[in-house]
Amino acid sequence: MSKKEEVSGYKGQALAVIRKAEAEIGDVLRITKNGQLYEGILIPRSEYGDEKHVVIKLKSGYNVGIRITPDTKIERIGKGVKPTFATSPPPEQNPKLPKVTIISTGGTIASRVDYRTGAVRPALTASDLYSVVPELANIARINAHILFSLFSENITPKHWTEIAKAVSKQISKGIDGIVIAHGTDTMGYTAAALSFALQDLSVPVILVGSQRSADRPSSDAATNLIGAVTTAGKAPFAEVAVAMHETTSDTSIVLHRGTKVRKCHTSRRDTFKSVNISPIARVQNHKITMLTEEYRERDSTRKFTLKPEFDEKVALIKFYPGMNPATIDWYVENKYRGIILEGTGLGHVGSYIFKAIRNAVEHDVVVGMTSQCIWGRIDMNVYDQGRDLLALGVIPLEDMLPETATVKLMWIFGQTRDIEEAKRLLKTNIVGEISPRTLAEE
Amino acid sequence: MSKKEEVSGYKGQALAVIRKAEAEIGDVLRITKNGQLYEGILIPRSEYGDEKHVVIKLKSGYNVGIRITPDTKIERIGKGVKPTFATSPPPEQNPKLPKVTIISTGGTIASRVDYRTGAVRPALTASDLYSVVPELANIARINAHILFSLFSENITPKHWTEIAKAVSKQISKGIDGIVIAHGTDTMGYTAAALSFALQDLSVPVILVGSQRSADRPSSDAATNLIGAVTTAGKAPFAEVAVAMHETTSDTSIVLHRGTKVRKCHTSRRDTFKSVNISPIARVQNHKITMLTEEYRERDSTRKFTLKPEFDEKVALIKFYPGMNPATIDWYVENKYRGIILEGTGLGHVGSYIFKAIRNAVEHDVVVGMTSQCIWGRIDMNVYDQGRDLLALGVIPLEDMLPETATVKLMWIFGQTRDIEEAKRLLKTNIVGEISPRTLAEE
Repeated sequence: MSKKEEVSGYKGQALAVIRKAEAEIGDVLRITKNGQLYEGILIPRSEYGDEKHVVIKLKSGYNVGIRITPDTKIERIGKGVKPTFATSPPPEQNPKLPKVTIISTGGTIASRVDYRTGAVRPALTASDLYSVVPELANIARINAHILFSLFSENITPKHWTEIAKAVSKQISKGIDGIVIAHGTDTMGYTAAALSFALQDLSVPVILVGSQRSADRPSSDAATNLIGAVTTAGKAPFAEVAVAMHETTSDTSIVLHRGTKVRKCHTSRRDTFKSVNISPIARVQNHKITMLTEEYRERDSTRKFTLKPEFDEKVALIKFYPGMNPATIDWYVENKYRGIILEGTGLGHVGSYIFKAIRNAVEHDVVVGMTSQCIWGRIDMNVYDQGRDLLALGVIPLEDMLPETATVKLMWIFGQTRDIEEAKRLLKTNIVGEISPRTLAEE
Repeated sequence: MSKKEEVSGYKGQALAVIRKAEAEIGDVLRITKNGQLYEGILIPRSEYGDEKHVVIKLKSGYNVGIRITPDTKIERIGKGVKPTFATSPPPEQNPKLPKVTIISTGGTIASRVDYRTGAVRPALTASDLYSVVPELANIARINAHILFSLFSENITPKHWTEIAKAVSKQISKGIDGIVIAHGTDTMGYTAAALSFALQDLSVPVILVGSQRSADRPSSDAATNLIGAVTTAGKAPFAEVAVAMHETTSDTSIVLHRGTKVRKCHTSRRDTFKSVNISPIARVQNHKITMLTEEYRERDSTRKFTLKPEFDEKVALIKFYPGMNPATIDWYVENKYRGIILEGTGLGHVGSYIFKAIRNAVEHDVVVGMTSQCIWGRIDMNVYDQGRDLLALGVIPLEDMLPETATVKLMWIFGQTRDIEEAKRLLKTNIVGEISPRTLAEE
């Protein structure tokens, strides 16, 4: 083992104290500072790390960076053990169970942290997965497939294309449902992207993540994965959906429509919410209950459509008081094809950016309006300024989420370069992204 | 009356059909199109209006634009009446009641639409207000003051300065509380701005708006105004707060702390929510109940501090997959002093924008991180990429709302040009914008 591997990423002062304690990555350290005691596993630092902090993973699963001061005491109290998945052979597969493929893109779910490298080691094979969640063997015949190992904030439209193609390949093989393991940060964006890229689905495509890694006692990984596999295997609907905790307790998982879901809390396990509609279904005690009558039914004979291309020349702009209209001009100058505005209230922006919007529209930029309120529906006919924006050519996007609208416009320009067709598609409900108006709203 | 005033704003085809019907602005029209019947008052169009739509205000209070086609029939069925406030003398003022000043900045509350001009006619005097909401005479001695008549999406940091100065002037006169009537769209931003601009308050400063104009049957204007005036007059706390409906029913008003409040629905009357904390108080049957023990007490002897300056060279940037890092470079090139990122989850952005962030920090741009989840708290120590961002110099903004963080950084640069002082202030809880961590969170 080279010196570099031993204390990977550490330099300067931090490296010196680690060397002095004769510690290596993965060892258990006891650090005393200002009378406070910390115990945890030494983990590697990234290339951006400074020279003053030592980072350990506490028993709670959280990492903490401790700043080295002259009175900081570091002691090695245990040797590191390389964590692995169980190596027992996979259980017999019951031929009566549905066939489910799990495609992993990364994220916390169904993975173990390898403290030697600091990398998250994904469950690479079906037997790895069974070792994490043995119940899966009673729910489905699982085939596991690693596509990427990415933090979800690093997933871009190019990855959406790859995921859509991988799903398409699996569907062609005649499986009963797909589960996509994904980091939660941008799972809502990917769910929307796959909803547009995979139309007329024959089987469910279920995204799943976890808010706490599987090596933490409060992990939601197993419950979410069981809910997702159950849904993929036997749910009566064939749509892209997100499977996550319904509440903070482990008793139920809900399925959110891919175009209407949003991460609404930084850390809670029930962070995902369906916005402006009910979730599609609930999984409780392995039983699936439909929560809406509006869904696409599962039908293995249906021919699905793959439209996996996205165009990144689309911007999401959140309006705020004092916003500089020149930022809109910048997108026009840089040949952007579309802009989604996250306006205020019913779909407004300050009149001081009207001129920039007019200029964008005159340069054939498609400009759509959503609301930073998140809940509710755009209505640009109520106030003068809303009507002014409509007259300028801004397209009101009903109750579409700003995030979904951005993904949709990227997808539209992946399909066509015709401005009028793009506008028509943006206004048309394609995969449930626009809910019909109901009387209850007013 | 000139021709222009008669059918203000209309041109081309739309003007022709209005002329044919011999109609004027304010007249009641019956329009028949495709077998559908619309009745309402003809209202003016703005300079951005097209030539194809006639806009009428329906009985519901909503405006509708009807596109003129060859088969559209327009008939004048009534003459317009100019709406006014009642002209009865103001009621006797009870000297035992607290003195409250209402400063109006515009918006729907306490106003009447003048169909002659299309403009919202604000309640200009105390007696106008009493005519809209007669109960006010039993709650406070009111002095009304018009500062602006603006849709709130047109309010900018410069207006925040004006409002803060106007409030300061009133406080110096020894009144018992201030009510600020404001459009709801950006009321959360203004509430945050006033929280920073008016520190060590001696009396309550209460922002109030309405989601439905007073001439609609479901208006929330009166209930909200009564709640706001009650609070301003006698609440035991001295903070900037927003007074709006607690639920969709008219039974209670809640007071949200100015730095923790957000408009969360485009049309519901209970659109405002306190994020990550409890509201400060509830008003029910004219009685105020405190909902927290953490508040600044009313104290008329306290010397308050006016710091009304804001600097607009601060940007709010919402991250999304595929975001172009060059947009961050643009702000650096244009000498912005601060950027608030609305990242994903616990405070992340794609690693493909790290280089642009590093460049911004190296050019002395203060970069703060908030979460687009809205609820919850930033924690950049959990994952590698969060720690990388911290190492780059990004400042984690705890549970501060992205909107509040943006306003705060504008305010900070209105006070100082010292980068280190700016960073220190951004991280420091000044007026309740950062809640302390609690055990319940994890």
